[in-house]
Amino acid sequence: MISVLRLNHRKRDKRITTHCALTARAFGASGMIFTGEADPHIIESVEKVTEKWGGNFKIKHSKNWKKEIKNKKLKVHLTFYGERLEDKIKELKGKNLQVIIGGEKVPREVYEKADYNISIGSQPHSEVAALAVFLYEYNNHKMPENFKNWKIKITPSKKSKKIKTKQ
Amino acid sequence: MISVLRLNHRKRDKRITTHCALTARAFGASGMIFTGEADPHIIESVEKVTEKWGGNFKIKHSKNWKKEIKNKKLKVHLTFYGERLEDKIKELKGKNLQVIIGGEKVPREVYEKADYNISIGSQPHSEVAALAVFLYEYNNHKMPENFKNWKIKITPSKKSKKIKTKQ
Repeated sequence: MISVLRLNHRKRDKRITTHCALTARAFGASGMIFTGEADPHIIESVEKVTEKWGGNFKIKHSKNWKKEIKNKKLKVHLTFYGERLEDKIKELKGKNLQVIIGGEKVPREVYEKADYNISIGSQPHSEVAALAVFLYEYNNHKMPENFKNWKIKITPSKKSKKIKTKQ
Repeated sequence: MISVLRLNHRKRDKRITTHCALTARAFGASGMIFTGEADPHIIESVEKVTEKWGGNFKIKHSKNWKKEIKNKKLKVHLTFYGERLEDKIKELKGKNLQVIIGGEKVPREVYEKADYNISIGSQPHSEVAALAVFLYEYNNHKMPENFKNWKIKITPSKKSKKIKTKQ
């Protein structure tokens, strides 16, 4: 079971934070808390996706990241300064994790509080990409397919758009 | 060898398109063309990353996506309507590919012109996540580590920031 903590959201990053949440959901995390600036539109748009596409993904905002650090879980901070994913993923699979992603300017304390600082490559790229690849590895390269209580669902297809809907 | 074509960029997606480019670079693509609205800031910020962190990643804008579809390459369009990555990745590994990502409202023609329409899960998430996981699979779950002509480089570390610089 994985929950995600997205640090230091800023309004200008609205779409990135939304992509983080949708990626967390699609790759099997149970929910995401974001800190920094509040933004009800993000919550609303992610909740709409869950309502339509199913599953139990929870999203909320918190003012205080320190309160949200879950000491009962193994805390995995994704950062390009961290140890290589491939060297550490075996220790993490199957465990109850809190995955922490920045936000710019992650406080020093996060590196210290984290049980693991993990890099998906040591190059600058994207918290969305890092989160996706981390969850993909955690799930043994499988994408979750069963989202309960869906109203809309896609069947994979070579050229067309195969969409099922129900009320 | 993989090049990326990002369709229909809009100014409000500045950070998403930048993350697409940085992800393409960090995960080993040779370059990215984006269509839709022009945005010199994106080009500038990605070129600065390459100048500092190394490698030969090329980024440019094009007004006309149809001109940019490379018929000499296998065209792989990433879309949540497509066939499952796990069912098709073996056919694609080691080949010269153009990976196409939306943008909203991808024209019907893209689905038709693509040699493959591939989904990374059939749930809505993020073109950044889809691109990352596709390239990660293509590279056999390895992250490229050798970016030539770097001025700054990180050594993976458990708790600290290990940075090397050279002029």
